[in-house]
Amino acid sequence: MKHYQDLGFAKLDHGRARRRGFPEVVFCENKTTEQIGKIFLAMRQRKDTVLLTRMSKGQFEGIKHLDKKIKYSDSGRIAWFNKRKTKSKGKILVITGGTSDIPVAEEAAITAEVMGNSVQRLYDVGVAGIHRLLANTDKLNDAKVIIVVAGMEGALGSVVSGLSSAPVVAVPTSVGYGSSFKGLSALLTMLNSCSPGIAVVNIDNGFGAGYFASMINKK
Amino acid sequence: MKHYQDLGFAKLDHGRARRRGFPEVVFCENKTTEQIGKIFLAMRQRKDTVLLTRMSKGQFEGIKHLDKKIKYSDSGRIAWFNKRKTKSKGKILVITGGTSDIPVAEEAAITAEVMGNSVQRLYDVGVAGIHRLLANTDKLNDAKVIIVVAGMEGALGSVVSGLSSAPVVAVPTSVGYGSSFKGLSALLTMLNSCSPGIAVVNIDNGFGAGYFASMINKK
Amino acid sequence: MKHYQDLGFAKLDHGRARRRGFPEVVFCENKTTEQIGKIFLAMRQRKDTVLLTRMSKGQFEGIKHLDKKIKYSDSGRIAWFNKRKTKSKGKILVITGGTSDIPVAEEAAITAEVMGNSVQRLYDVGVAGIHRLLANTDKLNDAKVIIVVAGMEGALGSVVSGLSSAPVVAVPTSVGYGSSFKGLSALLTMLNSCSPGIAVVNIDNGFGAGYFASMINKK
Amino acid sequence: MKHYQDLGFAKLDHGRARRRGFPEVVFCENKTTEQIGKIFLAMRQRKDTVLLTRMSKGQFEGIKHLDKKIKYSDSGRIAWFNKRKTKSKGKILVITGGTSDIPVAEEAAITAEVMGNSVQRLYDVGVAGIHRLLANTDKLNDAKVIIVVAGMEGALGSVVSGLSSAPVVAVPTSVGYGSSFKGLSALLTMLNSCSPGIAVVNIDNGFGAGYFASMINKK
Amino acid sequence: MKHYQDLGFAKLDHGRARRRGFPEVVFCENKTTEQIGKIFLAMRQRKDTVLLTRMSKGQFEGIKHLDKKIKYSDSGRIAWFNKRKTKSKGKILVITGGTSDIPVAEEAAITAEVMGNSVQRLYDVGVAGIHRLLANTDKLNDAKVIIVVAGMEGALGSVVSGLSSAPVVAVPTSVGYGSSFKGLSALLTMLNSCSPGIAVVNIDNGFGAGYFASMINKK
Amino acid sequence: MKHYQDLGFAKLDHGRARRRGFPEVVFCENKTTEQIGKIFLAMRQRKDTVLLTRMSKGQFEGIKHLDKKIKYSDSGRIAWFNKRKTKSKGKILVITGGTSDIPVAEEAAITAEVMGNSVQRLYDVGVAGIHRLLANTDKLNDAKVIIVVAGMEGALGSVVSGLSSAPVVAVPTSVGYGSSFKGLSALLTMLNSCSPGIAVVNIDNGFGAGYFASMINKK
Amino acid sequence: MKHYQDLGFAKLDHGRARRRGFPEVVFCENKTTEQIGKIFLAMRQRKDTVLLTRMSKGQFEGIKHLDKKIKYSDSGRIAWFNKRKTKSKGKILVITGGTSDIPVAEEAAITAEVMGNSVQRLYDVGVAGIHRLLANTDKLNDAKVIIVVAGMEGALGSVVSGLSSAPVVAVPTSVGYGSSFKGLSALLTMLNSCSPGIAVVNIDNGFGAGYFASMINKK
Amino acid sequence: MKHYQDLGFAKLDHGRARRRGFPEVVFCENKTTEQIGKIFLAMRQRKDTVLLTRMSKGQFEGIKHLDKKIKYSDSGRIAWFNKRKTKSKGKILVITGGTSDIPVAEEAAITAEVMGNSVQRLYDVGVAGIHRLLANTDKLNDAKVIIVVAGMEGALGSVVSGLSSAPVVAVPTSVGYGSSFKGLSALLTMLNSCSPGIAVVNIDNGFGAGYFASMINKK
Repeated sequence: MKHYQDLGFAKLDHGRARRRGFPEVVFCENKTTEQIGKIFLAMRQRKDTVLLTRMSKGQFEGIKHLDKKIKYSDSGRIAWFNKRKTKSKGKILVITGGTSDIPVAEEAAITAEVMGNSVQRLYDVGVAGIHRLLANTDKLNDAKVIIVVAGMEGALGSVVSGLSSAPVVAVPTSVGYGSSFKGLSALLTMLNSCSPGIAVVNIDNGFGAGYFASMINKK
Repeated sequence: MKHYQDLGFAKLDHGRARRRGFPEVVFCENKTTEQIGKIFLAMRQRKDTVLLTRMSKGQFEGIKHLDKKIKYSDSGRIAWFNKRKTKSKGKILVITGGTSDIPVAEEAAITAEVMGNSVQRLYDVGVAGIHRLLANTDKLNDAKVIIVVAGMEGALGSVVSGLSSAPVVAVPTSVGYGSSFKGLSALLTMLNSCSPGIAVVNIDNGFGAGYFASMINKK
Repeated sequence: MKHYQDLGFAKLDHGRARRRGFPEVVFCENKTTEQIGKIFLAMRQRKDTVLLTRMSKGQFEGIKHLDKKIKYSDSGRIAWFNKRKTKSKGKILVITGGTSDIPVAEEAAITAEVMGNSVQRLYDVGVAGIHRLLANTDKLNDAKVIIVVAGMEGALGSVVSGLSSAPVVAVPTSVGYGSSFKGLSALLTMLNSCSPGIAVVNIDNGFGAGYFASMINKK
Repeated sequence: MKHYQDLGFAKLDHGRARRRGFPEVVFCENKTTEQIGKIFLAMRQRKDTVLLTRMSKGQFEGIKHLDKKIKYSDSGRIAWFNKRKTKSKGKILVITGGTSDIPVAEEAAITAEVMGNSVQRLYDVGVAGIHRLLANTDKLNDAKVIIVVAGMEGALGSVVSGLSSAPVVAVPTSVGYGSSFKGLSALLTMLNSCSPGIAVVNIDNGFGAGYFASMINKK
Repeated sequence: MKHYQDLGFAKLDHGRARRRGFPEVVFCENKTTEQIGKIFLAMRQRKDTVLLTRMSKGQFEGIKHLDKKIKYSDSGRIAWFNKRKTKSKGKILVITGGTSDIPVAEEAAITAEVMGNSVQRLYDVGVAGIHRLLANTDKLNDAKVIIVVAGMEGALGSVVSGLSSAPVVAVPTSVGYGSSFKGLSALLTMLNSCSPGIAVVNIDNGFGAGYFASMINKK
Repeated sequence: MKHYQDLGFAKLDHGRARRRGFPEVVFCENKTTEQIGKIFLAMRQRKDTVLLTRMSKGQFEGIKHLDKKIKYSDSGRIAWFNKRKTKSKGKILVITGGTSDIPVAEEAAITAEVMGNSVQRLYDVGVAGIHRLLANTDKLNDAKVIIVVAGMEGALGSVVSGLSSAPVVAVPTSVGYGSSFKGLSALLTMLNSCSPGIAVVNIDNGFGAGYFASMINKK
Repeated sequence: MKHYQDLGFAKLDHGRARRRGFPEVVFCENKTTEQIGKIFLAMRQRKDTVLLTRMSKGQFEGIKHLDKKIKYSDSGRIAWFNKRKTKSKGKILVITGGTSDIPVAEEAAITAEVMGNSVQRLYDVGVAGIHRLLANTDKLNDAKVIIVVAGMEGALGSVVSGLSSAPVVAVPTSVGYGSSFKGLSALLTMLNSCSPGIAVVNIDNGFGAGYFASMINKK
Repeated sequence: MKHYQDLGFAKLDHGRARRRGFPEVVFCENKTTEQIGKIFLAMRQRKDTVLLTRMSKGQFEGIKHLDKKIKYSDSGRIAWFNKRKTKSKGKILVITGGTSDIPVAEEAAITAEVMGNSVQRLYDVGVAGIHRLLANTDKLNDAKVIIVVAGMEGALGSVVSGLSSAPVVAVPTSVGYGSSFKGLSALLTMLNSCSPGIAVVNIDNGFGAGYFASMINKK
């Protein structure tokens, strides 16, 4: 038996839920609304969770008639269907350096929630005013995994890691005053952190961070 | 009470074991043998594990008289003292693409072992002959965390991630035929993995991968 | 006798068909519709195949009245006239990692077809679900040349190469979740492949891959 | 039955000859002489060709006692054993821009010869004196595949491609007057060639070019 | 006496004609139409040539009422007033690799003409069909300075330089099939030319090439 | 007592005025007009100066009804409220290389003025006509701090520094003829100045330069 | 009268002390010991301070016989003669992230001391253990200028700036675990700091930071 | 008749003197002493000038016995034989920013002298003390071509160009305090000069500048 379904333009990897614990996630950029609709319907039949990332408002408008239960987040540009039940596991804490990092953080937070995790948010606690972070150390200690979302210089990852015993998943963002070379600055900062216990996902890849954190939390 | 000890050239962060679950690790590059010796003695007094990374053979020769129980790995360029007991937790699997990636893999594996984890090694299973990896899927399924160490194009991370439900910590190495721009190629590959569930540490940073994997395993 | 025709803004290289086996190909970006029309008419007189790449929909609308037999592919942004007969030679297999890579793949496939080759397509078999590729090894073995089109981390090239005895022409694409630095990540991956038997063309250069594969197949 | 042999530090991919038409090639950089010796002996038992690339003079001195029939090229830094018979197929032509590109060209030429091809060399015909190339157009027409090895600006690839109907495999080299950014300049030139029919391998990767050309010639 | 005139937002360097042989040239990008008009009127009073580069069609429409004698080139995006008389000096030859390079070439050619030089154009003679260039060697020999404008791989500069005794001023353009990194590829090619006798100006800087060639021709 | 005020999407750092001598500055890019309005009102209550940078004309139109006393600069894209009184301290001199650098210079100048400094402007004195700068050496000597704003090659910073005993804060701009790689060229120039006494802020970061100069002037 | 002295290979700028408040500083890299000696003697005659940077131990051994009063710092690779008197001005605080940053910090500290400033050192207070910094806020408040020297991710600059009202001069260092791209990571971090009040000097340029801080302190 | 002589490892382009006005120049890097000797002897037979660039002291020692008349410059790493007579033409002025740029400047100056030009040197007049340059404007006016050799920020090219009516050939050097990215900073500065009349050769390519200037002077 083949473990995938061939739609011509796509081969749906239906073995993924069994192999990896969560079904294939649909990346909507560069796909037509029609293609997304067909993929959604094929996946709904499997009766598992459907997660659709990088979905524009227009794409959502084009497919929401397919099923009333599809949810959408404007800020995170992410849609989902048939969210998994949250089981009693550890908490995932999502932190941002500034207000401008919130869209990427929401993509991470919603991904983790749809995958069945309990998520806590702590936004705008960047190192320019570090007392805002120090006033929340209880939340740092309470988390099983921490996702740090930060642009500009991305220093927040190192500071959070130095204060906590949880693994830190760092997400550089392309946000920046002046030129931050579209997130490259924050990416390099996080890769070169002087504090061990950090691993990094791609620039603006909130989904990747949420997925990775969920895999840790599940273990 | 201060949580650090001031040696003049260094301020030992003795609060770290309490805060983060493992004491400060000593990075030996650019330090003199005398400095390393002083730091070792100060840390030994705390009766906890001492881990010294990026230590040259010459540096080890210069400090090994301080205590017979200091161990050293030539391949991983890492020394340790008073290794933590391995408790019954999940396994960490360390995989390499080729033979040339082994030194970085050993740095990762020994770090995890010294921090009290059970580690399994699976070396030279790169994608040029993917059946070598497919013949070992049982090991992939058996691990709680997987560390993938690969240079050249670094494709192994994506492939392993696609086959397993464990989180993958990817370590790009600076090993390469022709020019791999000192690991930049593998780093970008791993950051852009089409398979979610990967996070990346810096080029050749085996220590960082072992430390991060240990934090996941501990949870 | 001069082997080129001077249109003022262009010097048509009419010796190319004799010298290289296929006439000059027209690159439409940065050319006006009027210029493209003049070049088309001058080339049609030579009674050989005309291939026009990177042609926008608008440019096609502006020249299609010149001859009803001009064909156009929206997806591949490529037009052709007087396609060569397909002779009984080996097959060219065009593979993509994902759905988003299809436009570049179509540029490659149509180029090869117009040049008289038999082409087979195998789309969306990226390494995140490698069983989709392994289920199609017969197609890999059946090809005389394989074109692999992949963005994000571009790992598919190495994996395909490791499984086949055909030369692999790799095309990195600028498609990517998060930031793939406009295809640079996939380009570096493919250049640094650990599996020999791969050569690379420029980012998104489907035409170049199709042309090169055709030259191999012809030999 | 496993298709590989486990030496601990390496897993020899003995299925490769069957799968790809040529056995695994040994990359010697970062391997100890002892490791190379063990791999050589294990491969010799299979009675097929053994090719060892990027081998230093010192490494060769350390293993040549194992079998008198091992050959070595100083210039190409490559060793081989049990060369394949040259069958009556097309010719591979290896061209260099300058004298300094010869070591990379020799790695390519010897690789192709050991794999059973007939190879012709045409060295030092760079574009600064293009009549040297134009005086040899008969050789260009006579080849089934052409390998162009060039550093500095790497323009030779485009010029040769424009003159011939054979596919051109371009190898940028790190040779350069002033700063050529270690081959990056020639690499970009070759990727951006205005003449179709070129594909590129990594900087200084003569082996990759010879291997790829051999796969084309075999077809 | 001050050698400049202060308009508040600009300080016109009226000493430049005396010091450098040609008055200040006005760069129009990022200037308002009103600012350009004021500068034009102030310069017209000096009764010397006025050259305005990178001027959009819209900017020209906004100032052309100021004086009927202002000329404008759409293709070169350049305007001028009171062109210098062409004296009997050597010729400047402007060559392009392709049709897409013509706008930059026109900026160079018009700049040189306005500065009083005799200019000859030879367009679309790129190295993909080198016989088009070889058929025009008489023009190469006839020039006192040659400007080579080429995108993609930029190899034309080296080839022209190898065929001529005139100094070659090379202009990389941002034109390219696939990704040429916005002209970086051609820039590096030209800087690393294996043929001496080339100097390079910035990407797309036709004005700079025309100005520099004029300074050589004047001497 | 908490030193910040939690608005949900932002945590206003009200301790900053006490800690750093000036209240938190609001960066408007990527914030909604509604968010900016809420932040403004919260800050106005503190009766200190409010500075809002990178504010678009549209954002200003959306909040100006909140208080008639909000001022806005089109050129500098900056708004302010309740400007500090200028005390009798040294002068800050803001210099630009060209007319196109004025918007960044205005952001710097207004920032410094709002923070209570006396500012002098000297625009369009770039090194192409260095006598314009030399005619103003009295202004250089009169300043306590100099801000140099320059694009293209950014050489003005070194020249000014060599002529003055005041510290020079250099701001590279993304302005440039041909390709200046979006300010990278000027940034590198300024970092590598052969004249000591220069420090650099980010590309186009006029605000950062004005703020830093104000901190020096205050001391 | 000329304001410089011509030694043939160098033109000593004796007007600099008058113009800039401190005489020309000698950069010793790429100079012969003989050249350095001649320059020293010529400068000693002026009876002002002589500062010689990037001087190797060998160069110092070669010139120290010229005058017994020449001092040398091994760690900072810097020599000086006739240090200026320290006047009662504000303090300059020099901070490092780690022990490995000390050589660059010493170059900065000694430069400032030789120029007549009072300097305080605070070493190894990086963000991995931020309490070490928080325990020293009195020193931060006590300084008129702060120099922050940090490698790896360079986050220390932002954190210090957020805690203090003094201007921060940031020096990225090329120190790093794994690959920090020779200081590029720390440089970008510091340029993109989310906390205003930072300006940056070049990688490892301790001298530049000390000089710039001295100019601020003098004002 | 062939216009080149085939030595096997090299094809001497004897047509070059006729075609370009000066015979082929020998680039010695990556050539053996034996190869250089053979090339020298073959060229000496043509009775024209022989110029050998990038020659190490060791290479010179190995070939100087071939002819007593071979001259060598340690500083410029260049050898020559049978220098051309200097004819009464314009002067070439070679300027450096600092003492460390002299080796590259000497390569340029000697190249121009061997090609028959009259050369004047003006060293160490960088922009940190611009009066040193302003005191020598007579030399700037006296030159037909100016070569500017500068490292660090490379600003000298723009300043010289702004002061003179001669074309400026700019040579960036890899000299730099702190990190100048091996000359990249100076290269970008010179390419982006705000003063027209500059063209650039590769980093440290003194030979290329001398050759290009000679071609201008000859015209």
